[in-house]
Amino acid sequence: MISNIENFYSKNANNLKRSVIRELLKLTNKPEIISFAGGLPAPKTFPKDELSKIVEKVINNDGNISLQYGATEGDELLKEEIIKLLNEDGIKNLESKNVLPVTASQQALDMVNKVFVDPGDPVIVGMPTYVGAIGAMRSYRADMIGVPLEDDGMNMDILEKKVKKLKDEGRKLKYVYVIPDFQNPAGITISKEKRLKMLELAYKHNFIIIEDSPYRNLRYTGENVPSIYSLDDKGHTIGLYTFSKIFAPGFRLGWIIAPEDIIDKFVVAKQAMDLCTPPFSQRIAGYYMKEGLLKKRIAKNVKIYQKRRKAMLEALDKYMPERDDISWTKPEGGMFLWFTVPDFINTEDLFYKAIDENVAYVIGNAFYVNGEGNNSCRLNFSFCSAEKIDEGVKRLAKVLKEDIKEKE
Amino acid sequence: MISNIENFYSKNANNLKRSVIRELLKLTNKPEIISFAGGLPAPKTFPKDELSKIVEKVINNDGNISLQYGATEGDELLKEEIIKLLNEDGIKNLESKNVLPVTASQQALDMVNKVFVDPGDPVIVGMPTYVGAIGAMRSYRADMIGVPLEDDGMNMDILEKKVKKLKDEGRKLKYVYVIPDFQNPAGITISKEKRLKMLELAYKHNFIIIEDSPYRNLRYTGENVPSIYSLDDKGHTIGLYTFSKIFAPGFRLGWIIAPEDIIDKFVVAKQAMDLCTPPFSQRIAGYYMKEGLLKKRIAKNVKIYQKRRKAMLEALDKYMPERDDISWTKPEGGMFLWFTVPDFINTEDLFYKAIDENVAYVIGNAFYVNGEGNNSCRLNFSFCSAEKIDEGVKRLAKVLKEDIKEKE
Repeated sequence: MISNIENFYSKNANNLKRSVIRELLKLTNKPEIISFAGGLPAPKTFPKDELSKIVEKVINNDGNISLQYGATEGDELLKEEIIKLLNEDGIKNLESKNVLPVTASQQALDMVNKVFVDPGDPVIVGMPTYVGAIGAMRSYRADMIGVPLEDDGMNMDILEKKVKKLKDEGRKLKYVYVIPDFQNPAGITISKEKRLKMLELAYKHNFIIIEDSPYRNLRYTGENVPSIYSLDDKGHTIGLYTFSKIFAPGFRLGWIIAPEDIIDKFVVAKQAMDLCTPPFSQRIAGYYMKEGLLKKRIAKNVKIYQKRRKAMLEALDKYMPERDDISWTKPEGGMFLWFTVPDFINTEDLFYKAIDENVAYVIGNAFYVNGEGNNSCRLNFSFCSAEKIDEGVKRLAKVLKEDIKEKE
Repeated sequence: MISNIENFYSKNANNLKRSVIRELLKLTNKPEIISFAGGLPAPKTFPKDELSKIVEKVINNDGNISLQYGATEGDELLKEEIIKLLNEDGIKNLESKNVLPVTASQQALDMVNKVFVDPGDPVIVGMPTYVGAIGAMRSYRADMIGVPLEDDGMNMDILEKKVKKLKDEGRKLKYVYVIPDFQNPAGITISKEKRLKMLELAYKHNFIIIEDSPYRNLRYTGENVPSIYSLDDKGHTIGLYTFSKIFAPGFRLGWIIAPEDIIDKFVVAKQAMDLCTPPFSQRIAGYYMKEGLLKKRIAKNVKIYQKRRKAMLEALDKYMPERDDISWTKPEGGMFLWFTVPDFINTEDLFYKAIDENVAYVIGNAFYVNGEGNNSCRLNFSFCSAEKIDEGVKRLAKVLKEDIKEKE
């Protein structure tokens, strides 16, 4: 082995660490464990039946294009379908030059930080926020500033204060990162009022909003709130989308929407990153959408997840001790809810006890940029069947009650 | 649009520019143009016939794994097949922990620079070298130091001098980047003696060798030279491979081999970059290899390209003026040869004349990190049929002769 390999690594690479969460997740792989930990779609939502036929068509009709190198800008057929999909969701006037297919939204997050962040640059995130976004920001040594979430999104007063403080200090805020619909991990949705307020602040203080929308198409109850991108008529928003939650994660396919200048910069960056998003997967997804299969698929999946969400909310009601210091969010969509336990309980300690009882979750701390969240955790309800969810919550309630008894 | 968007971009992003080459390539898209410009495999080499069946099997047998999120470390089935393939090529003792599937070698290049390069860090490359590697290095603001190539690889005296000079200046050389087999763009192969010499220098001065091997399986004549990785018993080499040239570029699939510690760092970096390489494509390639189809495919492709290489060498002999200052390399494999014209001819100026005559190439300058290469260009022989190659070279010879006449 080469001597002193550490001396070869870049500062950013030396800042990368294997995540605790990842090590914890390894413990959840035993088959007897009911896992609320991962963010996995249910395998029964995968488009297995239709897929072989679609792939055959792609190979027969468009083999020479879809198996060849493609333009960094992405497959025009897929982009057309994406534009149609978003048009129906209230985002008008999108053109091909505003859309960039990527290898799922984690690449979009990587790209956003590559293009906007120098080490030490401030960015604002919710507390809690998506752990993969934190990972991408950390890998560019962004200075992550947290703003606490309320039931309808970030606390706007605190957001404004933080923005002004940065301005006063002469520091350039690069962006505010939000997941407005059924947030990962908290399951909450930002109200229309707060979306408009955020835009008002963005216009006033000239910052970018990164709107990450992986779950937007998975609503099980309540009314749609317009996307920030659709409310923004001044080009301050960058939208990130993925096929992972509505088609299949195994394709690693997503897209970015943004003003043309920004897409242009992303294209140049992406060229050095991977030349292009796989033309084969892009064309498969394009055909899938063009044939109207995605919408049908989403409708089916919503039914499956609706049931699972209900099962989890009912099980929590049924098994959890009634206490003011135990609560959970009631997401209207997505895949997760946020579970809060008494503040004398540490969910990382509790995790090992839960594993002993064959139930798993992700510790709340992993979603905080300031070390908080120790008395909370994220529960996923998309992966397990309703029956397993009931049994899993029962196990979790048992572990929690014992821990409370021990500590109180 | 957001005000003063330039102020939001990172220093690395501001250093990114749309490549000249890319703008020039746009001119080559007219159907009447015979293009020796791109690095495209011939569409007739694509595994269209076998692919539908393989995909069907993957969906039916392994749908739940291949359509789901996968481990960042990659698909074990694919990694096993890669290990077998490399074992037959003389790389023994590889284990799963030494192999990381990536979204083709451009991602590997991005990752190498992300993990090793801070702005201003010196790296050494051949002159000429692969333009995509230059792009990745530039996007991290590496200080690219060129070493001239000879017929059998880099000039070793100059390499040693540059390495020593950096050492004397107290600067940390991060790596030496080479494409040992049928180099892009020059078509040359590094001799065994020089491979051993490079390793000797790497051991003595403690540097890393990046061995990029996209074309290694495409040899049309002559004897295999052992890979640097196979000759290295001290873990100084990182190997980059791709399926783009032997299977299909449309999958964007490749892999890295390296000592465990380095793979481990890459895995953590990759997690923040895209979570994992598409499990769907990995499983398809894995099955394809497991069923012995890749080897058959490579054998077929070698025959196709052998013919095209021969056609280009013969056409050059037939049409090009016999002069001491006009020459070309005679690659034993790969997809490119390097064409040198009199030093009073500028291949960028000549490019527009060539386009007028409906023939295209890539200007030599694009492959140099120091602005040289103006009297050279890269010719691709894998994409066009033998007939087109003959006609294209004829056109190029005409343009060149006229330009020489005009300037001499």
